[in-house]
Amino acid sequence: MASHGFWSLGGDNAGANTGSQSPSTTRAWCQAAAQKFPGGIGSKLCALLNVGEVEKPAEPTDKQPPQTEAGGTCGCNKSCNCTKAPVVFSDLYSTDLLPAMDSDAKTMTFLQEVVDILLAYIVESFDRETKVIDFHYPNELLQKNNWELQQEPATLDDILISCRATLKYAIKTAHPRYFNQLSTGLDMVGLAADWLTSTANTNMFTYEVAPVFVLLEYVTLKKMREIIGWADGRGDGIFSPGGAISNMYAMLLARFKMFPEVKEKGMSSVPRLAAFTSEHSHFSIKKGAAALGIGTESVICIKADESGKMIPADLERRILEAKQKGFVPFFVSATAGTTVYGAFDPLIAISDVCKKYNVWMHVDGAWGGSLLMSRRHRWKLDGVDRANSVTWNPHKMMSVPLQCSALLVREEGLMQNCNQMHACYLFQQDKHYDLSYDTGDKALQCGRHVDIFKLWLMWRAKGTIGFEAQIDKCLELSEYLYNKIKDREGYEMVFNGKPQHTNVCFWYLPPGIRYMEDKEERKKHLHKVAPVIKARMMEYGTTMVSYQPQGDKVNFFRMVISNPAASFEDIDFLIEEIERLGQDL
Amino acid sequence: MASHGFWSLGGDNAGANTGSQSPSTTRAWCQAAAQKFPGGIGSKLCALLNVGEVEKPAEPTDKQPPQTEAGGTCGCNKSCNCTKAPVVFSDLYSTDLLPAMDSDAKTMTFLQEVVDILLAYIVESFDRETKVIDFHYPNELLQKNNWELQQEPATLDDILISCRATLKYAIKTAHPRYFNQLSTGLDMVGLAADWLTSTANTNMFTYEVAPVFVLLEYVTLKKMREIIGWADGRGDGIFSPGGAISNMYAMLLARFKMFPEVKEKGMSSVPRLAAFTSEHSHFSIKKGAAALGIGTESVICIKADESGKMIPADLERRILEAKQKGFVPFFVSATAGTTVYGAFDPLIAISDVCKKYNVWMHVDGAWGGSLLMSRRHRWKLDGVDRANSVTWNPHKMMSVPLQCSALLVREEGLMQNCNQMHACYLFQQDKHYDLSYDTGDKALQCGRHVDIFKLWLMWRAKGTIGFEAQIDKCLELSEYLYNKIKDREGYEMVFNGKPQHTNVCFWYLPPGIRYMEDKEERKKHLHKVAPVIKARMMEYGTTMVSYQPQGDKVNFFRMVISNPAASFEDIDFLIEEIERLGQDL
Repeated sequence: MASHGFWSLGGDNAGANTGSQSPSTTRAWCQAAAQKFPGGIGSKLCALLNVGEVEKPAEPTDKQPPQTEAGGTCGCNKSCNCTKAPVVFSDLYSTDLLPAMDSDAKTMTFLQEVVDILLAYIVESFDRETKVIDFHYPNELLQKNNWELQQEPATLDDILISCRATLKYAIKTAHPRYFNQLSTGLDMVGLAADWLTSTANTNMFTYEVAPVFVLLEYVTLKKMREIIGWADGRGDGIFSPGGAISNMYAMLLARFKMFPEVKEKGMSSVPRLAAFTSEHSHFSIKKGAAALGIGTESVICIKADESGKMIPADLERRILEAKQKGFVPFFVSATAGTTVYGAFDPLIAISDVCKKYNVWMHVDGAWGGSLLMSRRHRWKLDGVDRANSVTWNPHKMMSVPLQCSALLVREEGLMQNCNQMHACYLFQQDKHYDLSYDTGDKALQCGRHVDIFKLWLMWRAKGTIGFEAQIDKCLELSEYLYNKIKDREGYEMVFNGKPQHTNVCFWYLPPGIRYMEDKEERKKHLHKVAPVIKARMMEYGTTMVSYQPQGDKVNFFRMVISNPAASFEDIDFLIEEIERLGQDL
Repeated sequence: MASHGFWSLGGDNAGANTGSQSPSTTRAWCQAAAQKFPGGIGSKLCALLNVGEVEKPAEPTDKQPPQTEAGGTCGCNKSCNCTKAPVVFSDLYSTDLLPAMDSDAKTMTFLQEVVDILLAYIVESFDRETKVIDFHYPNELLQKNNWELQQEPATLDDILISCRATLKYAIKTAHPRYFNQLSTGLDMVGLAADWLTSTANTNMFTYEVAPVFVLLEYVTLKKMREIIGWADGRGDGIFSPGGAISNMYAMLLARFKMFPEVKEKGMSSVPRLAAFTSEHSHFSIKKGAAALGIGTESVICIKADESGKMIPADLERRILEAKQKGFVPFFVSATAGTTVYGAFDPLIAISDVCKKYNVWMHVDGAWGGSLLMSRRHRWKLDGVDRANSVTWNPHKMMSVPLQCSALLVREEGLMQNCNQMHACYLFQQDKHYDLSYDTGDKALQCGRHVDIFKLWLMWRAKGTIGFEAQIDKCLELSEYLYNKIKDREGYEMVFNGKPQHTNVCFWYLPPGIRYMEDKEERKKHLHKVAPVIKARMMEYGTTMVSYQPQGDKVNFFRMVISNPAASFEDIDFLIEEIERLGQDL
């Protein structure tokens, strides 16, 4: 594996770089690559894309010969007389890198080598000819490499091999046919921003150690609140480690708002509380209630209609019922984009109920909040401006790299009062700058990862209209899928009507069970179809989509589209693939 | 700004690349760089290190001319006839990058350009001639750049400018003289691993979407439990978003262990609980108690001795007292390495008390846990193997990039029982692989960032002995500092005796107050000294160290060393700098 330092190391031609691979494969690959990329990049890529060929890389016999001393050519594939220090990674250790003396050149060569591996992986990930996953069962994968930690250091060559091995067995989340989660795709500006964030390696708790990032968080949260519709973008908020924690923050704030004494005195100072959310809501509401000492039994599940939306009349009924039983209703979590159906609860009607009973209204828009960026779709969240708090995860529908979740709060100062502990070693009150930027004490965390820069830089790069276009396109694709399968033979939709988000929930019925008359028997068979097709998808590595049961409904596919790389063709592919893999079942 | 693509773009000589800078400065820099780096890298660096020269980068007049089409030379500074596609970033937008058609080359050039900015920043960060921070007050910094988010997209040129501006005003956390937090320094292998993690862009909740990372978490947690001393590394654990959350997990588990019904029924089903921790412990214990509905008043602060260690006799006394008052003691958090003094609570004596009263023993080793890696220092945590849970943050003393915090738990299965909610769309029970690797349901989070790879890769690169050497060196440096100032004129130690961790707490007394007789007057003056010196440090940008009051002790410096780049010379510098900046006070 040659080194491709940015000061023009490397540049072997393909023939000199076959390593332990079979020459014919490599040559074929190189020829394809040379055609695909201009200006000598083909042969470079050819060298880089060894990534797909590493097997048991920790075995010495499989180690790639350290050819970084090749020299004599620059990257242009023409011979010239560069003089450059050869770097042989098999002789180097991490202690030879910065901050070691005179290690700048070695460090940069090493990091560049890693970047070259990553760049090759990125290009490969977007290639539809590549597998989404090279799947192995856990015990197989444990044996595929030496993953154990040792007493002794490994060489940098081994480190590079470990990087290649890790990527070889990773899920290609950027792949245009990866639909498995609500967070898919890989944005190039977001990625660049995340690399910068890692390099800056700081903490969000004070302005002192994260001046720019703290300001960018301020600017971005304000913008998000404006989009929600709060006057002048006023209010508060924080980026937290994921939607579950954002939802937990909301519940914590709601409790504190109603019973501020709970902070000092705990739940024993408070009557029995009741929280309300739809039966289709995310499990984090119950998880939060368990953690906060409220208890899962105090989370009352409100009925949803056939398409998954909370029924406001049932909410009111259950609030009254809880009050009669002596509970104090303190928190309603409406969902804007449920996890499975993608349903949007009717926020205006829910807000009327919340107002009537003086209950905190939270909107869990982890999945659907991003539709606020779309003029075409934001009506689905009408009433969101009446909420007391909103969870909105840019790492889902906006394709910001993981993690990036915001909690937005309408009341200023509440988070600070709820969570502050006045640690005097961190939030000194006699600093020389405006302390309102030391936002750390409003967090549950002490140190807090910088999640803002990737969102801010992507927003800058796309503009609001760019995010809008990206979101609208995903919704178009899901509508295309819905229209394609709703009347297609062998498909049944899980609920009627056009989905509101990109979730399309359906059963695929293989020919063998399509006309079964015994309904129970048919159901039993159908339950097994999706898991088998999914397992086959993973083994072939062609695509990935999620499935689950829900209530009395047996396993069905939940297709979601948040991947900006996906196209109409990929939707067609998915359907063909499901049919190919499931026809014999 | 020239592009330095890995397929050998760029390579202008210095003269051709002065941009908007003053030629004399640039020329001087280039000459120095050319001497410092071999093989043409000097002029490359010269071009890259524009990073320090950007002012108001969003102003069009200051934009760097897009010279990426320069061509005609490879990186070796010799003319050759490369043919390569010119990339003009001022004409390109994020929509021109992947997944756009035929965007591979543009994408790689763009990412390479970002990497070049990062590499230059890294080299600069380790240079003692560079400022730790180019400090600006918040309102100044807001005006230094156009940070606002717009409707319309920005060009990729603007994005690169934003990256440079962000780094220009960032803290250089890798700088050898950055001592401000418990997390300092920048490890090159850790950084490479974090770049890879961002590129893989996945979530820890299931084996399905993070096969390698889930296995590496398993391997690493097991290794950490072995080091704690639990038989065969058995037990459980998780990487969480920071020590505060790890500590909160511990409290949650302790409560659940004693009263499993709390999960469903909440705190109203449970007697009033009491938690115990030393008066020097981290604020996250109280924060956790507030969040979990236990209440801060139920956290009983145990007296510490003069050096900051919890007094076990006082713990026992307070446990008995709480029981008498009808509280149920359920949780003791001993601190292994307090935040300010670096004190290690006596774990064996504390464990005896915990055992006697059947109370969960947690060890908050966020800061000091890493000393378990050192044969010379691990005795300070003797008794840690008796704990029920241990917080250990590799992002502190082990210099793993932020964030990387582990909670280790002795009892297997407890986390799962405590936190699981059985979300059937994520943790399907009919998957085709061993479900014990789907660890997501034991977390409070749903999606969880991949924090493991940087630790695992660093461990591999250093070996256990490498971490040990790094930790031992930091402790040596702090001993050097302690010995240097303990009898030096103008210094007073905050507590007597050699510190146990790298924390060295001291007052610097400027000559003007050194012989003040009025003790109250002297104290009043002294309280103001550290904040002023710190403010001056930041304005000069030469070094950064923390200060705070504690109890009745007025503001003092808390020097901590976790930065592997620091040397004896940097300790000398710190003392000289404090004296230089404080002598007139």
